[in-house]
Amino acid sequence: MNQTFLIDPNANVLFNNKTDFCVGTGRIGLALQEEYQKQLKLVQDEIGFSYIRGHGLFSDDMAIYHTYKDTNGNLCEEYNFTYLDLVMDSYLSKNIRPFLELGFMPKEMASGDQTVFYWKGNVTPPVEYARWQRLVQATLRHLIGRYTLAEVRTWPIEVWNEPNLFGFWKGADMEEYFKLFEATFTAIKEVSTELTVGGPAICGVDDERWLKGFLDFCSGRKIALDFITRHHYTTDLPVPDGHYGYPALREHNGCFSELDISRALIDSYLEYKDLPIHITEFNTSYIPTAPLHDTNKNAAYVAYMLTRLGDVNESYSYWTFGDIFEENGVPFTPFHGGFGMVANGGIKKPTFWSFKFFKELYKKCVLKERNVILTADEKSGYYKGIAFNDALNRTGEDLKITLQLPADAGRYILITKTVDEDTCNPLKVWHDLGEPSSLSKDELALIKAAAEPVVKTSSIIADADGKADITLNVKEYGLIAFEIRKAELATDRGYSYERANE
Amino acid sequence: MNQTFLIDPNANVLFNNKTDFCVGTGRIGLALQEEYQKQLKLVQDEIGFSYIRGHGLFSDDMAIYHTYKDTNGNLCEEYNFTYLDLVMDSYLSKNIRPFLELGFMPKEMASGDQTVFYWKGNVTPPVEYARWQRLVQATLRHLIGRYTLAEVRTWPIEVWNEPNLFGFWKGADMEEYFKLFEATFTAIKEVSTELTVGGPAICGVDDERWLKGFLDFCSGRKIALDFITRHHYTTDLPVPDGHYGYPALREHNGCFSELDISRALIDSYLEYKDLPIHITEFNTSYIPTAPLHDTNKNAAYVAYMLTRLGDVNESYSYWTFGDIFEENGVPFTPFHGGFGMVANGGIKKPTFWSFKFFKELYKKCVLKERNVILTADEKSGYYKGIAFNDALNRTGEDLKITLQLPADAGRYILITKTVDEDTCNPLKVWHDLGEPSSLSKDELALIKAAAEPVVKTSSIIADADGKADITLNVKEYGLIAFEIRKAELATDRGYSYERANE
Amino acid sequence: MNQTFLIDPNANVLFNNKTDFCVGTGRIGLALQEEYQKQLKLVQDEIGFSYIRGHGLFSDDMAIYHTYKDTNGNLCEEYNFTYLDLVMDSYLSKNIRPFLELGFMPKEMASGDQTVFYWKGNVTPPVEYARWQRLVQATLRHLIGRYTLAEVRTWPIEVWNEPNLFGFWKGADMEEYFKLFEATFTAIKEVSTELTVGGPAICGVDDERWLKGFLDFCSGRKIALDFITRHHYTTDLPVPDGHYGYPALREHNGCFSELDISRALIDSYLEYKDLPIHITEFNTSYIPTAPLHDTNKNAAYVAYMLTRLGDVNESYSYWTFGDIFEENGVPFTPFHGGFGMVANGGIKKPTFWSFKFFKELYKKCVLKERNVILTADEKSGYYKGIAFNDALNRTGEDLKITLQLPADAGRYILITKTVDEDTCNPLKVWHDLGEPSSLSKDELALIKAAAEPVVKTSSIIADADGKADITLNVKEYGLIAFEIRKAELATDRGYSYERANE
Amino acid sequence: MNQTFLIDPNANVLFNNKTDFCVGTGRIGLALQEEYQKQLKLVQDEIGFSYIRGHGLFSDDMAIYHTYKDTNGNLCEEYNFTYLDLVMDSYLSKNIRPFLELGFMPKEMASGDQTVFYWKGNVTPPVEYARWQRLVQATLRHLIGRYTLAEVRTWPIEVWNEPNLFGFWKGADMEEYFKLFEATFTAIKEVSTELTVGGPAICGVDDERWLKGFLDFCSGRKIALDFITRHHYTTDLPVPDGHYGYPALREHNGCFSELDISRALIDSYLEYKDLPIHITEFNTSYIPTAPLHDTNKNAAYVAYMLTRLGDVNESYSYWTFGDIFEENGVPFTPFHGGFGMVANGGIKKPTFWSFKFFKELYKKCVLKERNVILTADEKSGYYKGIAFNDALNRTGEDLKITLQLPADAGRYILITKTVDEDTCNPLKVWHDLGEPSSLSKDELALIKAAAEPVVKTSSIIADADGKADITLNVKEYGLIAFEIRKAELATDRGYSYERANE
Repeated sequence: MNQTFLIDPNANVLFNNKTDFCVGTGRIGLALQEEYQKQLKLVQDEIGFSYIRGHGLFSDDMAIYHTYKDTNGNLCEEYNFTYLDLVMDSYLSKNIRPFLELGFMPKEMASGDQTVFYWKGNVTPPVEYARWQRLVQATLRHLIGRYTLAEVRTWPIEVWNEPNLFGFWKGADMEEYFKLFEATFTAIKEVSTELTVGGPAICGVDDERWLKGFLDFCSGRKIALDFITRHHYTTDLPVPDGHYGYPALREHNGCFSELDISRALIDSYLEYKDLPIHITEFNTSYIPTAPLHDTNKNAAYVAYMLTRLGDVNESYSYWTFGDIFEENGVPFTPFHGGFGMVANGGIKKPTFWSFKFFKELYKKCVLKERNVILTADEKSGYYKGIAFNDALNRTGEDLKITLQLPADAGRYILITKTVDEDTCNPLKVWHDLGEPSSLSKDELALIKAAAEPVVKTSSIIADADGKADITLNVKEYGLIAFEIRKAELATDRGYSYERANE
Repeated sequence: MNQTFLIDPNANVLFNNKTDFCVGTGRIGLALQEEYQKQLKLVQDEIGFSYIRGHGLFSDDMAIYHTYKDTNGNLCEEYNFTYLDLVMDSYLSKNIRPFLELGFMPKEMASGDQTVFYWKGNVTPPVEYARWQRLVQATLRHLIGRYTLAEVRTWPIEVWNEPNLFGFWKGADMEEYFKLFEATFTAIKEVSTELTVGGPAICGVDDERWLKGFLDFCSGRKIALDFITRHHYTTDLPVPDGHYGYPALREHNGCFSELDISRALIDSYLEYKDLPIHITEFNTSYIPTAPLHDTNKNAAYVAYMLTRLGDVNESYSYWTFGDIFEENGVPFTPFHGGFGMVANGGIKKPTFWSFKFFKELYKKCVLKERNVILTADEKSGYYKGIAFNDALNRTGEDLKITLQLPADAGRYILITKTVDEDTCNPLKVWHDLGEPSSLSKDELALIKAAAEPVVKTSSIIADADGKADITLNVKEYGLIAFEIRKAELATDRGYSYERANE
Repeated sequence: MNQTFLIDPNANVLFNNKTDFCVGTGRIGLALQEEYQKQLKLVQDEIGFSYIRGHGLFSDDMAIYHTYKDTNGNLCEEYNFTYLDLVMDSYLSKNIRPFLELGFMPKEMASGDQTVFYWKGNVTPPVEYARWQRLVQATLRHLIGRYTLAEVRTWPIEVWNEPNLFGFWKGADMEEYFKLFEATFTAIKEVSTELTVGGPAICGVDDERWLKGFLDFCSGRKIALDFITRHHYTTDLPVPDGHYGYPALREHNGCFSELDISRALIDSYLEYKDLPIHITEFNTSYIPTAPLHDTNKNAAYVAYMLTRLGDVNESYSYWTFGDIFEENGVPFTPFHGGFGMVANGGIKKPTFWSFKFFKELYKKCVLKERNVILTADEKSGYYKGIAFNDALNRTGEDLKITLQLPADAGRYILITKTVDEDTCNPLKVWHDLGEPSSLSKDELALIKAAAEPVVKTSSIIADADGKADITLNVKEYGLIAFEIRKAELATDRGYSYERANE
Repeated sequence: MNQTFLIDPNANVLFNNKTDFCVGTGRIGLALQEEYQKQLKLVQDEIGFSYIRGHGLFSDDMAIYHTYKDTNGNLCEEYNFTYLDLVMDSYLSKNIRPFLELGFMPKEMASGDQTVFYWKGNVTPPVEYARWQRLVQATLRHLIGRYTLAEVRTWPIEVWNEPNLFGFWKGADMEEYFKLFEATFTAIKEVSTELTVGGPAICGVDDERWLKGFLDFCSGRKIALDFITRHHYTTDLPVPDGHYGYPALREHNGCFSELDISRALIDSYLEYKDLPIHITEFNTSYIPTAPLHDTNKNAAYVAYMLTRLGDVNESYSYWTFGDIFEENGVPFTPFHGGFGMVANGGIKKPTFWSFKFFKELYKKCVLKERNVILTADEKSGYYKGIAFNDALNRTGEDLKITLQLPADAGRYILITKTVDEDTCNPLKVWHDLGEPSSLSKDELALIKAAAEPVVKTSSIIADADGKADITLNVKEYGLIAFEIRKAELATDRGYSYERANE
């Protein structure tokens, strides 16, 4: 398949690149773990997200909420922020801020026993909303005391997670959620009106009932929402096989059009028009045991998503940065189809590179096509682009992209970083090793060495008419990040590259 | 070009692998530099040599030897070990020990003004041998005091450097060198008979006059030499062009036969028969501005040298580990044809990998051919080998090597790490960048990323008859390190690599 | 109070210094935490223990044991070693090995619901001993596969924890424990007879019933025990007050005599005579919320314990190295009376120094008195000692210790490192700061700076008769580590310390 | 001696605190050394200066300037920035910028042979000023190319060093210096008018002849100076004894009045009135072998200097940060009276703390007396101060300072960090060790441990009338940094500090 594009360096194509705005994580309590922090450090050092969002801030492993009886037998409450400080300190020290998700319910405050996940997050309403409000306020006041209001006011606050699912909110009870939302919103704004609050954090498409219901409720109650949140996954639930599942990817356009519906619905409310929508979770599959997540196919598919997710949304948060994650239990093997960009042991999966490559693009977009995006730096005249080949099903075909650049006569360098099944495929190395559940140091080093892109350069001479043609060959499920820069020779006295290599 | 070999796992082929015994360095005083130490750390972390040898221990920048007049006007001597301690501490902390080379002459002890190199090492005899002997003894006693005799006795001691060259020893005066040698030998053994001493550190082939002369002298004076040293380079002196030179590589066999001559000559003395020969310097070219050193061609040529240098020698020390080096002045550019395995900035040159790959071989050699070496680990049954394609002049041809391994029926993994002009060629990236003399962080990172081998794996199924064929395609000036290991599948419940990659 | 001792450098006093043999930790699953690992690193870098022992290897947070139904509805078992590998790797990378304690019961294997601690360790027998045996064997075989038998055979294995207490073993059922012990012993020795196994891990003094019962049982069943284990605490249970308790220290001699009883009992069995006793836990108080643990008083009291615990025991393991610990829940404040030598945030408590100082003593003991111990290095003639002032109740008195050393005439240096309420008292600094539950970076740095001993030196001139008197002034609840070394002046030309300080 | 001060929190006392503006260093080429960089890192991590200034940018060890003959025999010039980049990168990576001093003369450009220092800086004028101008311009253009103009324009540029001394500028030829200055000024401004240039970098008091002469010259030539520079030392030249010298400190007031003279002279020129004066070097003694520099006396004396040096000057740069320094040769011992705040091995000298303590003061000064300075933070109400006892000759007396603070009723914490001969005196420890020229690891660790201030806290209860008295006892040659903060108790449920310490 061949594609050719003539580049207009003055074009200005819509591309709201929020690749690095936010990233997801398993329950917050896992942030206490060393391996989690190592993976987060790797992601922050190499990509660098601004925010992180995860579940279970108030779950019992964070040990925040406690009750006891005083000598008169009265129930008293106390708050313990020992672990919360450890987690928040660790985030801020890595230059990432929390996108706070308030939930789930502490056992001692819960009205029921229903839990979600292997790690048993309680998903029932509070026995008393005043207790919930005190917990929310005590927590925020503690955070403001420790980190200042100037800091905490930059942390968006979302109320609960996916209340439209029976698993995450008892009975998927919409009216009860609205009650929770309003109580929480009121409590937060009492602490400071500068804090920003949003919801309803719904999973997927449930616009007619949930999103509309939520907006009607807020509108009716004069709630001045700061933003809207929803999630976005692009596969369906597969039949489980042992520990795993093999979902099929959905076609892109259908997926993107669902996002347009949410946008249009919100914009139909005068008071909420143009309100930012944060996709607080997205990924291909929503099960943490889909081997798909570890493949080059996932990386190529996500690459295309990243070109368009900003079209109608303020941000989109990949679920998740790493594989320390316990929703379905502790993984048995290093590659187990976890959500992470990074597998346990600090192995970069192909999808890691989709994010790194998009993060590194220049601000100005001059070309955005089905299989390639190109950006330019006005000051230096340098270009950075990404080409990807993400057909849903194997075609066996390479994709050949040619870019025709207007260019001053002279010498240029083309730099390519290639991630495809042949060059950067750690899953294959692990498979070739026999799919070991425990990796020796040696095996881990081997897999990591095979998880880096192949970097190559070549010299391009623009002709006197000022034209340079760049051609990229993208293998199936591959992505190539490329750069083009002016690179005139500045040869030292007596040096000859050609003689050196005779 | 095709080559096929049937492997006998029980073969035991001569291969005295001393790749990691010793490595060279510019003058010792440069070890004070931070960039030098960073490069050494990199080399030690990834390869790990046992000894390091360089010039100029007693040169003035080390500031060891000083004289002053006392109140009566008498000349007094004093020794300053401040920098010596810094250097030796830095070496030992990186798990490398000095192979001590005694020289050059401190200015305040020198009988003349002749110097060598940009950094002006004085190469004249001492004004008085007793002063030289006191200096040698004071230095060794200080080292023993600081590091213990148990430690210092493991450091070989060599007297001077290349006295057979006019540049390195005034007049290349053989009789004067013998005088120096005997005075030094005597002084050292007075400190401790456990210290080991050798010479004559001659450059290249001068066996008839210098090596024989030296042995005759020592034999006549009953000097119980601990070892013999010489150097080994395999190009001739090129015509200079600006800062650079472009020497031609000599054919291998001629070079190796010169080493046989030295060996035979030594063995002809009853008292010196089988005395260890340390090649205290070797490389392709002996000029520090030969762009050849930075190429893949150099790496492939050296790879073959490493298979044979141990045949008649105890060790062989590559000159040098890094590019902080001032013999011809300070380099103008990061790639300037320096001797180092590592270029300034911490860039691994292709030849770095020749050493790393040889260092990692197993002890037992089962195949050693013109373009391939194979070793085996008896306990695990694993193999490690290296294939290389080092034709002196471009042939344009790939080399295809097939190894026929007897093997238990079952699944194996073949791991390859490829270093060739296409996969691992930092010099080319620098050239494509325009040969900048100063690298930005970005450019440095790019070059480093392109200086790693491409790592790939594949799965090999041995047939029921117990045979597995491994085929390697080695490009011109390329080398491939490869490993073969048993790797039976241990698939987790429900996992399918194939379904993951549909 | 004054004490004077004449030192005999040739004396050889009983002092079995096993200070660094083993140290305790909260449940093993906490080893996944980053803060835990930071504290362990600090302890290992500065003290360096050989072994670490904690509870809950098989508790559910380690996620090792799982069951599922196959398609025929049969119960199947599977083992997950993902977290176990993380923990064991982290230990070995810090040069510390596990002293394995097998327990508690995985929920899916437990016969009942009884749990211990905030973190709910199940303390009931297995539903079926064969399942327990398979779990033990699978775990050990995995460890041997990953770390080799040569390594794992050095890890002592203890069966369960404190089964003589109702809280730790259902009904404190002695017969059931013996059953567990034998099943476990048998299972382990089936894996390898080189693995070493011991018990009964009983808490405190229960010699007549439990220790004798255990030995009788083992003797009757011909069980070739490798070692015996018990615990040792020296306070009683205090009345709780809010989150805390204030136990009173018991007088030393009574405590030590209990250990003699265990020793005598074991030695009364011909087959178990001289069998090593490992005190697998000791501390002053056994509650994790005794502010006593954070005081200088604790440090001085423990110092004396360390002089005598080796008298009849093979080792003694302080419970615990750090304060990441959840038995009574997550601590509300940095100083909360936790067991650790190190408080959260990496603050060294006074007791940390007791261990560091004892670790650094020389092998040969020349003086061991109620308030001072002195050791000598035969090679260098240097001395190291520790003086401590550990009265149970405040006396307000300093302790003045004078050591009369035979010494060559000449110049010596006396080095002292003082830890007392005035010099090294982080708890007081925290108290002066207002007892904050969350520490700012600034506050943490201040507390840490105040948690280091005051180091001083002085010059001692031994008189011509060869005598040097050293006097130490030890404040109440203080300890002083001291060293005495020969230190003749080696003054540089023209240097004058006196003129510099005029 | 007792002093009592009543504090007015609203006072605003003149205190131009430029403690951290700039620091000196030996010749720039030494910045290539690892030990130098370690010391600089320590200083930057703990104190953090903005600029660094040293000699020898153009000296031959930096290897910048080279000439060669082309094939026609014409002299050609070339520039080598390899080492310059290493040095500047190392500075910027440690958050410190160069205060550029242009000098000395490259040998290949020098008109004579006169050199200064052990390291032989050539101090003669250029053979041709155009060559010097090209060198200056090439260097600045290179720096701008590498670091941007936005960066380099923040680096002040000073022309030469101490031309009023015969040792530093041939003949101390004033007219020749003016010629150099103008040529340099012109060349720099040609590169960019945004670059800032100053001089005449004279040593000490030579105002009438040199400073006035310089200003007259510049005024006459219409040179728009950006700033003026001079040096400031407060001892005279001592008689040498062996390697060392023992200068006497001059009385403070005389020293400060010399600075007033320079200020007044400059302000007498209309066009230079209020021009910033940078003291580009200051210290007590100007010889690098004055043991005084290593003492507590030096620290206390410098502390007082730091309270007043900003009165009439824009900045003042302590000569030097560390002891890697070769002006009189390589030091023989770790303590040798070097200029550094840090001794070799990374030992903090007492004077290090003078700088650290002043750096940490708050912006607003409320009290500045002969022996104490106090600053306040308006937002928090916290105080930070420093008390010092710097009598020129031993008095044997302590200084007792009482501060009467107006304060809200309540609980406060007083924090003190004490540096005096008894608490923080590494020189004494080294002396007690016998003044070893080479330190073992053990000895170095001991000295470092004794080089930290003693940190203590106490609790202060302000009475109901709102008064709190703070008393500090400062030993001879001691300094105490202190802080006062509100610290109300926030005791956890059941916690009792008193019961913990019974």
